[in-house]
Amino acid sequence: MAQKIVAGIDIGGTGTTFGLIDERGNILAQNKISTCDYADFGDFVETLRLRINEMAAALGNSYELSGIGIGAPAVSAQTGRIEGAVDLPWPSPIDLRGAFSSAFGLPVGVNNDANAAAIGEATYGAARGLTDFIIITLGTGVGSGIYADGRLIYGHRGLAGELGHTIIRRGGRQCNCGRRGCLDVYASARGIVQTALEMLAQSDAPSTLRDIDPACLTSRDVAEAAEKGDETARRVFDFTGRLLGEACADFAAFSSPQAIILFGGVVNAGSLLMNPLREEFERSLLWIYKPDVQILTSTLPQSDAALLGASAMGWDAIASAS
Amino acid sequence: MAQKIVAGIDIGGTGTTFGLIDERGNILAQNKISTCDYADFGDFVETLRLRINEMAAALGNSYELSGIGIGAPAVSAQTGRIEGAVDLPWPSPIDLRGAFSSAFGLPVGVNNDANAAAIGEATYGAARGLTDFIIITLGTGVGSGIYADGRLIYGHRGLAGELGHTIIRRGGRQCNCGRRGCLDVYASARGIVQTALEMLAQSDAPSTLRDIDPACLTSRDVAEAAEKGDETARRVFDFTGRLLGEACADFAAFSSPQAIILFGGVVNAGSLLMNPLREEFERSLLWIYKPDVQILTSTLPQSDAALLGASAMGWDAIASAS
Repeated sequence: MAQKIVAGIDIGGTGTTFGLIDERGNILAQNKISTCDYADFGDFVETLRLRINEMAAALGNSYELSGIGIGAPAVSAQTGRIEGAVDLPWPSPIDLRGAFSSAFGLPVGVNNDANAAAIGEATYGAARGLTDFIIITLGTGVGSGIYADGRLIYGHRGLAGELGHTIIRRGGRQCNCGRRGCLDVYASARGIVQTALEMLAQSDAPSTLRDIDPACLTSRDVAEAAEKGDETARRVFDFTGRLLGEACADFAAFSSPQAIILFGGVVNAGSLLMNPLREEFERSLLWIYKPDVQILTSTLPQSDAALLGASAMGWDAIASAS
Repeated sequence: MAQKIVAGIDIGGTGTTFGLIDERGNILAQNKISTCDYADFGDFVETLRLRINEMAAALGNSYELSGIGIGAPAVSAQTGRIEGAVDLPWPSPIDLRGAFSSAFGLPVGVNNDANAAAIGEATYGAARGLTDFIIITLGTGVGSGIYADGRLIYGHRGLAGELGHTIIRRGGRQCNCGRRGCLDVYASARGIVQTALEMLAQSDAPSTLRDIDPACLTSRDVAEAAEKGDETARRVFDFTGRLLGEACADFAAFSSPQAIILFGGVVNAGSLLMNPLREEFERSLLWIYKPDVQILTSTLPQSDAALLGASAMGWDAIASAS
């Protein structure tokens, strides 16, 4: 009898990763497409259908694709719809679960991408054994998933955990959500680029970042320059880390976590980001929580937590359907 | 056979309310002492022991005091200890559950005062039937209790929901917790007095508040002046309401509540506080949550939610002990 597998899909503002996962959490195959190459959501779904079915066929007859699990920004696990993602190229609302159910003819489970990452970390990663933690996903945007008392918090309409859209600087930078000063607009990859451009404009200090066309500058460029000792680039990560440290201290007062786990591409900057973050967090944390709250980084390879978390939704959908 | 009753005790920074409650949530008797009259915690416990036993004796033989439930600031339901309440006259930590267990020789359950209020509202008040809500208690300090997915959130060491100590103004007013800009130091009764004193100092506008000794000014004085049309006093509540509206919008992004319930003495200012609060909340709320999140005020008489919530802990303690 063929072994059941699920497809995990992690839809991000820049890239969409997809893979095939068995019941023990082994990722048997994975690949990636560029989300923003697909102006039309129908084309995006159809491309994933073809690619995932090819990938499953390549594994041979001993495996049977049995369900689909999807993590995406601002999706409700309850309604299955993307309610309003500012980082995706398609107008909201989008019936994500409906579209993939029709395309694959299989049970489909969906969840917020940060919730998927939280489930992945809880099951296979840095949060194993923790009952209370918050995961902050730093990517194109800033997302979050919150476990409290051993359970992921969903909230009304499944929309809990939009910590990227809490205000860290009142009256600050304009955010895509229409408001000002959101954590997202400072700590996301985009926010880091904006900080770098502002710092370059505000000083005459020499910086290798000045050799890059501002329109093409990425957070990775800033991280690479910082690693090579570029002073402006280092200041960018110092600023971002401190701001995240302040934000995490506020988050702790909400759910009293054992750990806050930083996750995503931006975290690759390592100690350049994490040292000022931890320092500011310790300084800003309400004393009743000290010294218990750890600041951790994901222990899973780059995209695996999101894929594994997404696949967990697929298994849940299969269980619900049978 | 005598009917079992519990004593509910709500310990606040200013006053401590206590009462006797039957299993259907009827408050059979209640009274109050001034918390700050007791410099010694042992005297405080002994006074409550005497007063509560007298109160129970007055009800006659048909009732049997069987357990004690206590709500207090910054207490952990897990450890039974007050971990660090800036509003109480005694040094922390305080073994609250231990002290009352010894005094009464009965099962004692304790919880954060705001959690107790949340349980009271969920069982008997404005939150009946809601699965996702946040209660903000505005008293001597600012506390909070959070229900998500039908459960009160406790978090690690039972210390979730210290939303009074999230930062609403970075670098703002000095808070008793040692940090700056906490919601507590603006929206508490104390904060309202401070706002009034600052506004009086910053202008020459005539105000009846100028007739009151600044050292004796209370938030109730400010509310009474505002009700009588005093312009400065009205500006105090407008400022406080807007600030609370901003804060509540951030809180919604955590747990996606159906309602945020304002509770406590400060709420008696009514529309003077609630109108600017609702207006700023609507303006500040992330659009994916609109139009679902209601801003409500407690529907229970002043201290009843806290007493009823505290009594629920007493019943739980009796059930655990038997």
